[in-house]
Amino acid sequence: MGSEELDRVVMVLVRARNPNNIGAVARAMHDFGFRHLRIVNEYEVPFETARSAVDASAVVAGAVVFAGVAEAVADCTLVVGTTAVGERALQHPVYALAKAGEKIGAELMGEGRVALLFGSEKTGLSNDELSHCHWLLTIPMQEHEDVRHPSMNLGQAVAVCLYELVRGEGSVVAGGAGASASAGEVERLTALLTEMMEETGYTKRHPANCDEAQIRRLVLRMGVSASDAPVWMGIVRQVLWKVRGE
Amino acid sequence: MGSEELDRVVMVLVRARNPNNIGAVARAMHDFGFRHLRIVNEYEVPFETARSAVDASAVVAGAVVFAGVAEAVADCTLVVGTTAVGERALQHPVYALAKAGEKIGAELMGEGRVALLFGSEKTGLSNDELSHCHWLLTIPMQEHEDVRHPSMNLGQAVAVCLYELVRGEGSVVAGGAGASASAGEVERLTALLTEMMEETGYTKRHPANCDEAQIRRLVLRMGVSASDAPVWMGIVRQVLWKVRGE
Repeated sequence: MGSEELDRVVMVLVRARNPNNIGAVARAMHDFGFRHLRIVNEYEVPFETARSAVDASAVVAGAVVFAGVAEAVADCTLVVGTTAVGERALQHPVYALAKAGEKIGAELMGEGRVALLFGSEKTGLSNDELSHCHWLLTIPMQEHEDVRHPSMNLGQAVAVCLYELVRGEGSVVAGGAGASASAGEVERLTALLTEMMEETGYTKRHPANCDEAQIRRLVLRMGVSASDAPVWMGIVRQVLWKVRGE
Repeated sequence: MGSEELDRVVMVLVRARNPNNIGAVARAMHDFGFRHLRIVNEYEVPFETARSAVDASAVVAGAVVFAGVAEAVADCTLVVGTTAVGERALQHPVYALAKAGEKIGAELMGEGRVALLFGSEKTGLSNDELSHCHWLLTIPMQEHEDVRHPSMNLGQAVAVCLYELVRGEGSVVAGGAGASASAGEVERLTALLTEMMEETGYTKRHPANCDEAQIRRLVLRMGVSASDAPVWMGIVRQVLWKVRGE
């Protein structure tokens, strides 16, 4: 998702009670590159505490306060509520987050603007608030017998949802192991190792491990990289030098 | 992922400084159905504060404290470190979380046990701690010009990683080289190899290749299977026996 798409996602916190949580939400947004935070609250929002959130000051500074959900989502083409399923009889379609992410991504591929609503830490979104949503998403969680209903920490829930939206980027970030050794190098390493096993008496002691094909497979299973191959050969050559009497 | 697989995932917090963060990690584990928390800390862990975390008391009560990373991951067949890329020159392959989740899922399809390491909030994992890892994962984050490197809140980072593991049911196809050697076996092989390199004079001749972390990474890159590990140890022991004068 490019930054232009990220800029058409709006996080709406409805009746968030704990300013630390607002700060945590802002930090997660900052981490994943989202900028638009809207807050629906009947009383004054204690932004001072939220502003102290590490790295999130720009998000908090740009937050806009609205009196109601309708106003907060007025310019959005898709309004998605979040819910811990099981709390109430649901009037909406509910999608697991992975599926919801696909649908949100599709909306953003067009010209749409998407609102993601999170309710208060204690009670979630009310039925009235939910009524503004096109559909709901839920984060798949473990059922526990001892708990009335599962619910996540607000900052963690937001982090997980935003991660899902940016998730589909490239896979390998940096190399490390690098290019594999050529078959020729593997063969040279195999030959050296075989010499070493002979010189030290290993082949006599464990003949069952030592036919040529077996040793070659053992070395192939190492998956030696081009840069590690000379290191291993150096180690084995040093053994040979030592064993043969320096 | 079934609960049997979840039970073979171990979260390892290394030098976590803030007990609230330990509590937040425990809560995320509880939410997603993970149970095994291990803590590596040199000073006493202030569990009392962590215990107050909502819904997470069982996880915190079951937490086990270890003196070092080696001990904490000894029974694990795959050790994955977490990193904010860009901090340092990386010696390991690094996968974005989505790809990492696939690889972890594949390991759990077998009989493997997987450790997920998180470093301290301030500094992440040290090079020595990273040397115990087979590879690293990183959560894709937005680059910000104003910040030296991106880093997430610990509780949020853990929530995002665990979500990825439970996200895509049934998406991983089995297959592979057979069960991996445990980190404990890899550590024993590393120690034997180090002895061999010393006894043969290799360490004196190529000191640049021979610090402990380097040798450990060399061995980890072999990707030794549980059945190959004793073969390699036997080969090295035979060298030691020979070099030490029979």
